[in-house]
Amino acid sequence: MASSLLRFSKGCFNQIPFLHGSLRASTSSLAFKKQAPDKIEHTGLLNAVEDSYAGVTVEMKERIDAKDFIPLLRASISKWRLEGKKGVWVKLPLELSNLVEPVVQEGFKYHHAEPDYLMLVYWIPKTPSTIPENASHRVGIGAFVMNNNGEVLVVKEKSGGFKGTGVWKLPTGVVNEVGLSAFQGEEICAAAVREVKEETGIEADFVEILAFRQSHRSFFRKSDLFFVCMLRPRTYVIHKQESELEAAQWMPIQDYVDQPYNQEHLLFKYVAEICKTKSEKEYLGFSAMPLATTSGKDVILYYNNRDFSKL
Amino acid sequence: MASSLLRFSKGCFNQIPFLHGSLRASTSSLAFKKQAPDKIEHTGLLNAVEDSYAGVTVEMKERIDAKDFIPLLRASISKWRLEGKKGVWVKLPLELSNLVEPVVQEGFKYHHAEPDYLMLVYWIPKTPSTIPENASHRVGIGAFVMNNNGEVLVVKEKSGGFKGTGVWKLPTGVVNEVGLSAFQGEEICAAAVREVKEETGIEADFVEILAFRQSHRSFFRKSDLFFVCMLRPRTYVIHKQESELEAAQWMPIQDYVDQPYNQEHLLFKYVAEICKTKSEKEYLGFSAMPLATTSGKDVILYYNNRDFSKL
Repeated sequence: MASSLLRFSKGCFNQIPFLHGSLRASTSSLAFKKQAPDKIEHTGLLNAVEDSYAGVTVEMKERIDAKDFIPLLRASISKWRLEGKKGVWVKLPLELSNLVEPVVQEGFKYHHAEPDYLMLVYWIPKTPSTIPENASHRVGIGAFVMNNNGEVLVVKEKSGGFKGTGVWKLPTGVVNEVGLSAFQGEEICAAAVREVKEETGIEADFVEILAFRQSHRSFFRKSDLFFVCMLRPRTYVIHKQESELEAAQWMPIQDYVDQPYNQEHLLFKYVAEICKTKSEKEYLGFSAMPLATTSGKDVILYYNNRDFSKL
Repeated sequence: MASSLLRFSKGCFNQIPFLHGSLRASTSSLAFKKQAPDKIEHTGLLNAVEDSYAGVTVEMKERIDAKDFIPLLRASISKWRLEGKKGVWVKLPLELSNLVEPVVQEGFKYHHAEPDYLMLVYWIPKTPSTIPENASHRVGIGAFVMNNNGEVLVVKEKSGGFKGTGVWKLPTGVVNEVGLSAFQGEEICAAAVREVKEETGIEADFVEILAFRQSHRSFFRKSDLFFVCMLRPRTYVIHKQESELEAAQWMPIQDYVDQPYNQEHLLFKYVAEICKTKSEKEYLGFSAMPLATTSGKDVILYYNNRDFSKL
């Protein structure tokens, strides 16, 4: 779905109306008749990709002056309005920041931004906007890795909130927006395996998600989901990441739980006790089941694998 | 943490250097001596809020021309560089889009945007940037609500991917970025209760998260987490939301599972079967435990409540 939203022909706009007409003959000619045809003939229309929600996306790629772009945008919006389009998306790469102010002056609002582009959006109808919200959550993981001696893999960080506290904590990290493939974000289970390897050199396999917590306003307006993942180690010799860690070790689980910090902070106490429970007796978390959707997308379903009668 | 990042004194910059000097005398005078003092004396420095990651945030509020702003920005960055600052954040409200292009020309990149503002960021050191990534996930819910007759609450949507398919599906929705309070995002469990009420008029209580799935590139570059929530109904008379739904009803759970769509699509088949398993025998999902952190933040921990020996 996202790929079709972003797919776009190379040339970003046609200066010559008949080029546009050759792509969408019927609607174009309607547009030409009903709105100031002279103007359109002189300025052309923007190329855009349609989506299934009555939206159009214009992805600008080549440098253009605002004085040339704005007439194209205005003419195009007039045409899209007649066609019953609702949302107009304009994607401007960082290099085309010259167009940001003029596009805002046309009534567009920001939708989201990434380091290399800014997406603006304009809602044509008078009805309330149904433009989807931006991403709202960051996703992090903590890894509970225990060896056969009942010891848990713990680290002391050089920076961040735990710096200087002396607390031994689980290896943690953020789930990458880009995973193994540039076309796919990172799986939660894969992020846990990667972080443990990066921070401690320990190779481990994902077992279960034991718990997760949602918190809010953790980063600007955004919320945060943090998944406690249990991993089973395949190697035991620690090679700590010098840049981020002050220390790393295997620590008896009870010592980990008993740390004053973990006893004084209820959330940490719960997480530590859940890990301990898992290490001592039956505690069922959610297993990961990779599935492919009919559209060929890989997804992972996390669920209680024991209680669920397999299909 | 976020609030301190965004907190900012009303006047956004001091045109007169001694005003700034009175706030941070020592570092200011250092800056004056080492970098083009004449220029700084004429232009002043930007006010900024410091964070605990060696970053500074400038939140612009009042209209200013680029020709006045850029010298202030340059002088301020020189000063911050001397002070060992790393990340420089510039927050520009939509109304100050005139500053976007000039700020980009100073080497800033986009970080994130919301409808009303754009955040740009500049990394001062030569070392690799440790600027945190933007939010990466949208979060959705599906609600499994069953009455005492073994019937599940299902809906047919007027638009979206299921339009015209005839499929009866669970009520679904997106977790709001802003929850009951403007200062807090919406809880997953609260989103499920709200969506069921909005779509069907049914009042229900959250019981458990039965499963969740992560998928990628569901919306531009962003990933998506979808939580299947079980709710227990408190009312049974359906008042469907006219704007979004074609129909809503209570449907025998087996009929829901047996729908061809749910049989043909593996992810839907799993979710339907998990709901059925839950309705017939023991299937343990994750319960919600509200906790307050020591900093007074409300968080919710989701975990296997039965297997975990309570604290």
